[in-house]
Amino acid sequence: MVGDIGLMCMSNKLDRFGSEEEFLKFLDTFFPNKGKRVVIGRGDDCSLIKTPGKILISSDIFLEGVHFDKRYFSPYAIGYKSLAVNISDIISMGGRALGFNMCLMLTKRDSCREFFNDFFNGMKGLCDKYDIYLAGGDISFAQKFCVDITIWGEPGKRIFQRKRSKVGDKIFITGPIGLSRAGLIALSQGIQGNFPESVEAHLTPYIPVKEAEKIVKNPYVNTLMDVSDGIFKDIYRLIRPGQGAELEIPIKELHNEVIEMACLLKEDPVVFAGIGGEDYVLMGSCREEGIYSLKEEVPGLLVIGRVTDKGKFLINGQQIKGGFDHFGGMTNG
Amino acid sequence: MVGDIGLMCMSNKLDRFGSEEEFLKFLDTFFPNKGKRVVIGRGDDCSLIKTPGKILISSDIFLEGVHFDKRYFSPYAIGYKSLAVNISDIISMGGRALGFNMCLMLTKRDSCREFFNDFFNGMKGLCDKYDIYLAGGDISFAQKFCVDITIWGEPGKRIFQRKRSKVGDKIFITGPIGLSRAGLIALSQGIQGNFPESVEAHLTPYIPVKEAEKIVKNPYVNTLMDVSDGIFKDIYRLIRPGQGAELEIPIKELHNEVIEMACLLKEDPVVFAGIGGEDYVLMGSCREEGIYSLKEEVPGLLVIGRVTDKGKFLINGQQIKGGFDHFGGMTNG
Repeated sequence: MVGDIGLMCMSNKLDRFGSEEEFLKFLDTFFPNKGKRVVIGRGDDCSLIKTPGKILISSDIFLEGVHFDKRYFSPYAIGYKSLAVNISDIISMGGRALGFNMCLMLTKRDSCREFFNDFFNGMKGLCDKYDIYLAGGDISFAQKFCVDITIWGEPGKRIFQRKRSKVGDKIFITGPIGLSRAGLIALSQGIQGNFPESVEAHLTPYIPVKEAEKIVKNPYVNTLMDVSDGIFKDIYRLIRPGQGAELEIPIKELHNEVIEMACLLKEDPVVFAGIGGEDYVLMGSCREEGIYSLKEEVPGLLVIGRVTDKGKFLINGQQIKGGFDHFGGMTNG
Repeated sequence: MVGDIGLMCMSNKLDRFGSEEEFLKFLDTFFPNKGKRVVIGRGDDCSLIKTPGKILISSDIFLEGVHFDKRYFSPYAIGYKSLAVNISDIISMGGRALGFNMCLMLTKRDSCREFFNDFFNGMKGLCDKYDIYLAGGDISFAQKFCVDITIWGEPGKRIFQRKRSKVGDKIFITGPIGLSRAGLIALSQGIQGNFPESVEAHLTPYIPVKEAEKIVKNPYVNTLMDVSDGIFKDIYRLIRPGQGAELEIPIKELHNEVIEMACLLKEDPVVFAGIGGEDYVLMGSCREEGIYSLKEEVPGLLVIGRVTDKGKFLINGQQIKGGFDHFGGMTNG
């Protein structure tokens, strides 16, 4: 999965795309252009799609050098992750993804069939699994490879939002945190062999679609979001203004590889995990009376604290700082 | 309108955005976050929007160095044109734009209030004029400034598509062609003073929304699209497979500035106009019995030829070649 993508395309000059039409015909072999929800598919100025009375809609940028490093990401992983992180946004509000548009910026050295065969297959796996269609998009050459996806979905019976927590709620997450960050560091330091699950979490993150389906059926869950910038940053986005959070995360609850990486870097493992972005686990809050059934229904669900009325954010008794900001970069607490 | 954008932001270091939250709060002052069609606005993982049973949807990339040159484009023009070209896609299928999502890649030197005040105002003018809302999006820093917009709209009573022409149809365009290309050349050669309408067509193109409203009511119009890559390329996309087109464009029908620029470059004015991209006029075909009323209803509408059964594409008796392709660049016939 790890390799120099550029070299793949350089190896066979004959297998480059000669025109936009040729590229789009190749794309058509991966993504059907008609379907029960697609009245007019790709090829006109717009697509015409059937929609429910309300749709959830979200966009995510997936840019080389910022959101992924080409030295580690195979074309397959770029395709997979660019769509996966968008699906994550839909399920975190209790919805089901239906379709997406894609703005694709490719670089001259990527414009070959080998690259796009893998790239499209990375997306197609998710499309087939979750019955999602590609409605349309745009293509351009650029200096950096970039995939911008706008995804839409059908809302569930209840819409879940951020900042709907209630004082006394238990705060939960659906999977390990800090694992993607450990994977990125392992890849950048060439020690990925010791961190296989971290590397997978970074390159092809698991999206908790099944877990979301269980969570949204639990009437005691009050608020929900996906964790993309680290829980230390995202907890401020989850909790209702005026409220606070007391998180308790014993080291033993962290993933072994996260503990190992934090020790290697001489960092506090809990802080390491809390500021690590791109985990794409769900984080939410649930009334105390619902948390036991929720834990039974959702394997791997971990209770990490509770919502308070104090406006303070504490982790194991210390004030929480840090997380990722596109304007400020990574800040360490 | 023309100036070095970078300098604007360098002039006042204090006026930079400190965080993503700060940037988004600034954005909120331009684009309302609630509305009759927006149930949940920006600030959650998705927005929740009300939709008709079917929507038209389209995406366009607007990338520095490819779709616009920062030496000529003011922040206002970048904002205006990035949204305008998307509105063009909706109206060319007979629809009305409703809302959009925006993926915004900004560069460090643009991340100041002066820049985004102008940029957002360029969009806001169109939003207010056509009652379009900004539902959501994503932000990242990048090496090149880029705006990717996904727009959706309400289809009209009839959906207009490409490749629905009938033999004998008259082919029409709604406005001057080649003007945007003349503007780009004038700007790049520093002679914009002599080409004011060309420059305006390139930087802040007129979008024929009113013209589209008239066209879609004419029952004789068979096919319609917007011209983004030049009519010499787009005519192949407009005409039904197996059919052809005979275009007759006398030089006197071209815009004065287009003729002047072609003469300056010692190019055939008709070829110059035909391969010029980004005009965002509408091109379509109409049964002969409807063309006279169409010309009366749509001021500026120009009949440029007719659909044939021969599979050949001719301009003033010569075979048509050329146009813009992202894989091949500009090709001159």
